Amino acid sequence: MNNKKLKLTDLAKLAGVSTSTVSRALNNNPLIKQETRDKLQHLAKQHNFSLNTAASRLRSQKTNVVAVIINFDGDTEQSINDPFLLKVVGEINLALNKQGLELLLSNSFMAGDDWANYFINSRRADGIIVVGQGKSPINIEAAANAGVPLVVWGDPKTPSNYPIVGSDNFVGGRIATEHLLACGAKHILFLGDPAHAEIAERYRGYLAALAAVKASPQVVSIDITSSAAYLGINQLLVEKGLCFDGIMACSDMVALGAMKALKERYISIPNDVALVGFDDIAMADISHPSLSSIRQNTQRASVLLVEKLLAQLQGETAQSQVVDIELINRQSTKR
Amino acid sequence: MNNKKLKLTDLAKLAGVSTSTVSRALNNNPLIKQETRDKLQHLAKQHNFSLNTAASRLRSQKTNVVAVIINFDGDTEQSINDPFLLKVVGEINLALNKQGLELLLSNSFMAGDDWANYFINSRRADGIIVVGQGKSPINIEAAANAGVPLVVWGDPKTPSNYPIVGSDNFVGGRIATEHLLACGAKHILFLGDPAHAEIAERYRGYLAALAAVKASPQVVSIDITSSAAYLGINQLLVEKGLCFDGIMACSDMVALGAMKALKERYISIPNDVALVGFDDIAMADISHPSLSSIRQNTQRASVLLVEKLLAQLQGETAQSQVVDIELINRQSTKR
Repeated sequence: MNNKKLKLTDLAKLAGVSTSTVSRALNNNPLIKQETRDKLQHLAKQHNFSLNTAASRLRSQKTNVVAVIINFDGDTEQSINDPFLLKVVGEINLALNKQGLELLLSNSFMAGDDWANYFINSRRADGIIVVGQGKSPINIEAAANAGVPLVVWGDPKTPSNYPIVGSDNFVGGRIATEHLLACGAKHILFLGDPAHAEIAERYRGYLAALAAVKASPQVVSIDITSSAAYLGINQLLVEKGLCFDGIMACSDMVALGAMKALKERYISIPNDVALVGFDDIAMADISHPSLSSIRQNTQRASVLLVEKLLAQLQGETAQSQVVDIELINRQSTKR
Repeated sequence: MNNKKLKLTDLAKLAGVSTSTVSRALNNNPLIKQETRDKLQHLAKQHNFSLNTAASRLRSQKTNVVAVIINFDGDTEQSINDPFLLKVVGEINLALNKQGLELLLSNSFMAGDDWANYFINSRRADGIIVVGQGKSPINIEAAANAGVPLVVWGDPKTPSNYPIVGSDNFVGGRIATEHLLACGAKHILFLGDPAHAEIAERYRGYLAALAAVKASPQVVSIDITSSAAYLGINQLLVEKGLCFDGIMACSDMVALGAMKALKERYISIPNDVALVGFDDIAMADISHPSLSSIRQNTQRASVLLVEKLLAQLQGETAQSQVVDIELINRQSTKR
């Protein structure tokens, strides 16, 4: 047996293909034809070539930078100044730093459509963490198919060929709504836009909880910002009066916007309207009344995202994973 | 006159020095001996060489990335999760994106001591924005002296050979304290560590306001975190009882920690103790009672930081600049 380990470049030469083709083939990347993958995997086995050798060579050219893409929809007013997004960025940064990596903060507007080229081929970063699935997975899928090491913060139940880490949004929506029902609310509003992947799951949970007690749903579909929620609730009150006694908000910022609209009209929280948010940002605890919320464990999720990205950088695969959520009961739902 | 423009490399060859020496000499960088600077500046004039030509050549090799270094002290518990730091990072990111630039999030622990080498020579970034002066300017000065395009968020009154953008911290400390005096407070505590450059200025403003009415200062020196403030106020109350009727906190997070300690002991804000924070983060408006604060215009400051960095990238110089502050009067000081 030959003890001198074969390098990725040697194997590429032997096969008459590029090093990236070898790397992708050994990673079972669907961009490479099945026939070529089989041929190269056989050749690697024959020459006792281990992918870790290749990975460690690739590592030697690493940037030690990970791009974090905030995946905004084209039509949202949400910005990087959103407290939940900033919290997630802060937690991911801490998790990256612990691994000796640094964070390049990007977003779907800056990065354009070809993320593989923009970040990896241009050597801006070794891999990508996408925050939010947005309304379409097309850019994420293209990057993953191009063999880019990539993980996503989103809804882990979405079928995908890349790992998604996130909360159980369906259960979150369900227990938030069940809690409002237990507080005596009978006409519960869903405040948020179910067209987003994660919010869609929260909405499904809301519908399931209502269906169990044969209550009717009522949706106010708004952008995921505090000011959109404030305007949405104001408009509803003007048009229909106080036609609800509970609100399941799709985020804490949305809940705080609704709270402002209700307080301005002297509608009591929780006596007239009970209110639950989602995320458990620091402001939920500080607001008056304090806001009940579904806590997303962003710290745990960030550690998992970085672990799964590092696994890919080392040529391993990684699976989607659900992070536990928890109802935090505060004044906005106590009766 | 020769219309074909001389390149930076041509001038370097003529002078028998490296291109970086020419670039630094024409930028009047003190790392280059005065004699050499004079010689090269004369040569450049003689050959009708404009620095903008050099700058545009340098620009063609740009990364379009700006490193943002959060400049923590070695002994602080403050982290990137601090809401004010996250707000500043968010605002700087928006200002950079508007110029087609992206943000590499770093900090003083990750970057080590040799920032020129870590960021610029390794081609991680084109320039550096430092957030916070910390307790020692040694790394900032070294990077600036090495000719790194660099701007600092801090106290603009600090003498420096790099531009500092920030609030008028002295005036902020003074008007916060004057406001507490106007609310009837007679024994006003300063809550924060005056060893930091920016906090030192706030403390000077506090002392000036007290001196004008011959009141005595009282300092509780703590780390710039909410939990340190909570513990500090708790300890003071245990040891000396309620020996103060006003608090000028060095940040809103510190004020919110103090507020928690006071509320737990049923000490009324503002009736027993009036309280002013600094920064005006979103939580100041949401807290109960809402928190009076000195608003730092982080949006304006971020735009200025990016402008001054771009000026340096184009071979121009930039000066330190003060951004206006404003007292936001809320429930924590109303009587």
